Amino acid sequence: MEELVALCKRRGFIFQSNEIYGGLQGLYDYGPLGVELKNNLKQSWWREMVFDRDDVEGLDASILTKPSVLKYSGHEDTFTDPLVDCKECKSRWRADQLKSKNCPSCGSDNLTDPRPFNLMFKTSVGPVEDSDSFAYLRPETAQHIFTNFKNVVDSTSKQLPFGIAQIGKAFRNEITPRNFVFRVREFEQMELEFFVVPGTDDQWHESWVEARLNWWNQQGVNKDNLELYHVPEDELAHYSKATVDIMYKFPHGLEELEGIANRTDFDLGSHSKNQQDLDIHSSVLENNESNARLATQDHDSKKWTVPYVIEPSAGVDRGVLAVLNEAYKVEDLGDGKTRTVLELKPHLAPIKAAVIPLKKNHEELVKIASEIKKDLQKLRLGRILLENSGNIGKSYRRHDEIGTPLCITVDFETLEDQSVTIRDRDSMQQNRIKISDLSNYLEGLVLN
Amino acid sequence: MEELVALCKRRGFIFQSNEIYGGLQGLYDYGPLGVELKNNLKQSWWREMVFDRDDVEGLDASILTKPSVLKYSGHEDTFTDPLVDCKECKSRWRADQLKSKNCPSCGSDNLTDPRPFNLMFKTSVGPVEDSDSFAYLRPETAQHIFTNFKNVVDSTSKQLPFGIAQIGKAFRNEITPRNFVFRVREFEQMELEFFVVPGTDDQWHESWVEARLNWWNQQGVNKDNLELYHVPEDELAHYSKATVDIMYKFPHGLEELEGIANRTDFDLGSHSKNQQDLDIHSSVLENNESNARLATQDHDSKKWTVPYVIEPSAGVDRGVLAVLNEAYKVEDLGDGKTRTVLELKPHLAPIKAAVIPLKKNHEELVKIASEIKKDLQKLRLGRILLENSGNIGKSYRRHDEIGTPLCITVDFETLEDQSVTIRDRDSMQQNRIKISDLSNYLEGLVLN
Repeated sequence: MEELVALCKRRGFIFQSNEIYGGLQGLYDYGPLGVELKNNLKQSWWREMVFDRDDVEGLDASILTKPSVLKYSGHEDTFTDPLVDCKECKSRWRADQLKSKNCPSCGSDNLTDPRPFNLMFKTSVGPVEDSDSFAYLRPETAQHIFTNFKNVVDSTSKQLPFGIAQIGKAFRNEITPRNFVFRVREFEQMELEFFVVPGTDDQWHESWVEARLNWWNQQGVNKDNLELYHVPEDELAHYSKATVDIMYKFPHGLEELEGIANRTDFDLGSHSKNQQDLDIHSSVLENNESNARLATQDHDSKKWTVPYVIEPSAGVDRGVLAVLNEAYKVEDLGDGKTRTVLELKPHLAPIKAAVIPLKKNHEELVKIASEIKKDLQKLRLGRILLENSGNIGKSYRRHDEIGTPLCITVDFETLEDQSVTIRDRDSMQQNRIKISDLSNYLEGLVLN
Repeated sequence: MEELVALCKRRGFIFQSNEIYGGLQGLYDYGPLGVELKNNLKQSWWREMVFDRDDVEGLDASILTKPSVLKYSGHEDTFTDPLVDCKECKSRWRADQLKSKNCPSCGSDNLTDPRPFNLMFKTSVGPVEDSDSFAYLRPETAQHIFTNFKNVVDSTSKQLPFGIAQIGKAFRNEITPRNFVFRVREFEQMELEFFVVPGTDDQWHESWVEARLNWWNQQGVNKDNLELYHVPEDELAHYSKATVDIMYKFPHGLEELEGIANRTDFDLGSHSKNQQDLDIHSSVLENNESNARLATQDHDSKKWTVPYVIEPSAGVDRGVLAVLNEAYKVEDLGDGKTRTVLELKPHLAPIKAAVIPLKKNHEELVKIASEIKKDLQKLRLGRILLENSGNIGKSYRRHDEIGTPLCITVDFETLEDQSVTIRDRDSMQQNRIKISDLSNYLEGLVLN
């Protein structure tokens, strides 16, 4: 883990947030390469979940959330971690993460009994500071998918089964953030709520688990490092009939990368008005505040049904960490030499290709390199970098370390025969190809 | 404006946030089409600002911000609006927006004197609720670009001039949010901080104003509806030497779409340690909390310089509103008939092409349509929709209204000659072309 964290900072993937003022625990910033990697991962998810399907629609809802939403979702009552205080040194800890009954900070065993600590961040809204005028920062993106259910159905005429997908930030006031970007206070989620006819939910649940495993595999996460964890009944969240976690062997241990839950009709039922008219199976709070019926009507029988929902919910930051961990290799090149290489899947690589003139500032070479960059950039495969460094060896090493799948060198031969040297990140093999063949070559590399 | 708001809700561009619980003022959710339009606008900006250049790097920093950052940036002291209370009905108003000296709610003239109201949202961080353990929700994305200046320089070896670009949410506790997504409490910004050698700043300022005007024009915003506003000296923000606002004729009036400010060396200087060793021109708070020198060193003279910075800062939501407003047309078709059409630039359109089998659920037609969708989706131009509706006329009308540039109909002739009918959104002309020519046709349409 330390090596990965060091690489992330040195090469500009991930920095500690607010670092020049000593940082703020559990917050990270994505640097020049990190933002590209993260965007690529999110776009890969969006392509799979929204673009490739015709039964899923996207959404991008607000982070500030009216308390009613999180009252009926159950978060106000149950979204807590057990907190203990050390009476000696006044530090605070998550009871379920303490390895012994002593304070990890001062060693005292004079600890309070655990009490529930709500993880939601609150903020006052509007110019009046009273108890009514506050909002939560959403603790998950999911709830706004449920509250927008009717809006989406009305505007798209979708019929069951169909889903609503969303990528965005969520916030949890973790008692003890830890393990780099794994457990943080501000993070991003990629969540799909897939609404199905009750009775078909178990089958859909199974097929989503399978689909999500395959997707992670396509992102370069080896199946040998993934495990399914069928959450036992007594550990299930209040809304869940069944949950399968996709566990990944993170550097710090086997932990959840994505959870796929069968949330039944709990959420739509909870947020509905006139609940007694709907045949809601799960146990929901009586709701006199909602103005909507979150259900679908059968064309023929006119009967209203509250759909069941299958939720594949993945962490973007955990995904970035897993993908980086899988890709990170220190290769033995013999003779005591090594090289560090990030074998990222090309579609995730922050830079798709670096175009390097052999000689720095050489007018003709730079001009050709710059034209190549421009042409390859137009393919919309991601960032192409013109690197006018004049040091090919150093450029190759840097691009190995940041995962650039292809380096393209423009040299004096290029001036004569319009060919360039391409160098493959993984094999380190170099070949000459025509400039006119570069587009096809790069498309073949990135789109596969 | 009312028509636009109605279209946005009906067709799934923009919904009121938390609507089923009565909404929360100044918050909006982007629906299935809105999220695509917004993503397309953001990606267009990122392509122009980051991908097409080699002197700009990206960043994606946290929203939660340590108070020190916003102390030295000046926000704690000056990021305020003048607030007045009505002593009769207890309502609160922005003094500079009151059209008369009477309360707009109850008509009373019994108002307090204006006092400064800070627009930043606060929240407690960590399990201890004391005055030291809070963070702000960032009021602009810019500050984290400045605090990460050294991290970016160290990890990318960038030399002046160069920029750092960021897209992300910002939060302002507006006293009176208004005008749909124009003035809201949670919004998205696209900000570039472009660092230059002092003395070259005026020239860079000018060229960025020009570049940004051109970009808006390429997004379909007519230059006739844009105006430059050179902010007079006595209205300049505390950090600014000069600011040019790009004003747009919004439905509710001429208002700022983007601001391009010369922020001088104020921000980097403010966040630097040992300020006395740096030749800082602007007036900054003494800083004993920062651990970093935010400056660049000359290779030869070894002299440290605090760069000046030019900031083109655009609102994503305002951009969406401007682009929708420009694209929205109600066309007279003669005979008392009209059609509503969104003439969005194809690269911004939420759906690039709809593939429609002439007959609903007809196995062969649907199979071909689905193959066409799959092939066109692979071009990575944006969303391609397979629409198995069976009602071509209705589909055309819907796709006019949501701005889909191309409809592709698969009919019984297709089964014989592998040709399809394409229908152009703007001209409404229909032509037959070969399926094998569709990719080129769509690329020509979207990439131009």
